[in-house]
Amino acid sequence: DSRLPEFATHQVGVAGAVLDESNGKVLVVQDKNKMKNAWKFPGGLSNLGENIGATAEREVFEETGVRAEFRSLLSIRQQHKHPGAFGMSDMYLICRLSPLSFRIHLCTQECLRAEWMEVAELARTSDTTPITSRVAKLLLYGFREGFDKVDLSMEELPAVYTGLFYQLYHRQLPESYRHS
Amino acid sequence: DSRLPEFATHQVGVAGAVLDESNGKVLVVQDKNKMKNAWKFPGGLSNLGENIGATAEREVFEETGVRAEFRSLLSIRQQHKHPGAFGMSDMYLICRLSPLSFRIHLCTQECLRAEWMEVAELARTSDTTPITSRVAKLLLYGFREGFDKVDLSMEELPAVYTGLFYQLYHRQLPESYRHS
Repeated sequence: DSRLPEFATHQVGVAGAVLDESNGKVLVVQDKNKMKNAWKFPGGLSNLGENIGATAEREVFEETGVRAEFRSLLSIRQQHKHPGAFGMSDMYLICRLSPLSFRIHLCTQECLRAEWMEVAELARTSDTTPITSRVAKLLLYGFREGFDKVDLSMEELPAVYTGLFYQLYHRQLPESYRHS
Repeated sequence: DSRLPEFATHQVGVAGAVLDESNGKVLVVQDKNKMKNAWKFPGGLSNLGENIGATAEREVFEETGVRAEFRSLLSIRQQHKHPGAFGMSDMYLICRLSPLSFRIHLCTQECLRAEWMEVAELARTSDTTPITSRVAKLLLYGFREGFDKVDLSMEELPAVYTGLFYQLYHRQLPESYRHS
């Protein structure tokens, strides 16, 4: 594309669905200052230069005190004229994480409550947002039938020009097609 | 997240992989003004407020004159300090499209050449970029074994606050899990 690039048009928000595979429970929070006390996955905006997985891990820790590790990307939402984005657009990504610790230390500045909830219950409750409910169903499907059915895997590759690494997310490619 | 939102940090670029399922050929271009004449999928930056699929369809048409229809999302790349993004980050998405027309009218301002190439050849050639090569392999896998193996499907849902619609992309969820 030879046209002049426009300014950045999107803010990027990331939420982390931390699933404890030993008991099928997922970490959920209720935000303060929201009209409806809906259960959601902890998350927030990426800092400039921060990778998607790093944002998920940081936001989970800041809001709940739980340490967790990025595993895969589950969903992407694009929304224009996002409230609170000053007329800009919003890209909101939900990742799957594995817990490294379990004790909740609630950040009371951001959250009203946090708990480990059965993913089957989160998939069924109406006390949640449409996207959280959808991703809870994906998580439940993955938990029961294998995460390879719901994951987008991530790979880091070197960028030619900057020497930095970029992250590429897509469905798993069988070994026989990787070297075709 | 109760902190003040930061400014938009990402530009969004979208490329369209237009695959003709009748013959396994995919539409590729070579950009002008690049050091290496690598085959790529036509694409470019999203305009403010433009959906991912709409950018892919527009860029394919502008560069090649081919009309095509969005089918799915195949891959997402996040890159920081992207060259030409003024220190900002870049989110680059590649979509799968179906052709509605086939005659190429090359935009000579942006492209050196364009052609319909066997997807198996694109998956194998070294005259391409690492990401194009990877997505060509995904396309080949999908073409041979079913696009359900490579696609992220898209759904439009109404946003509570703005009355606008947002687009949600994730792996296909079986009917039995959609209403759990």
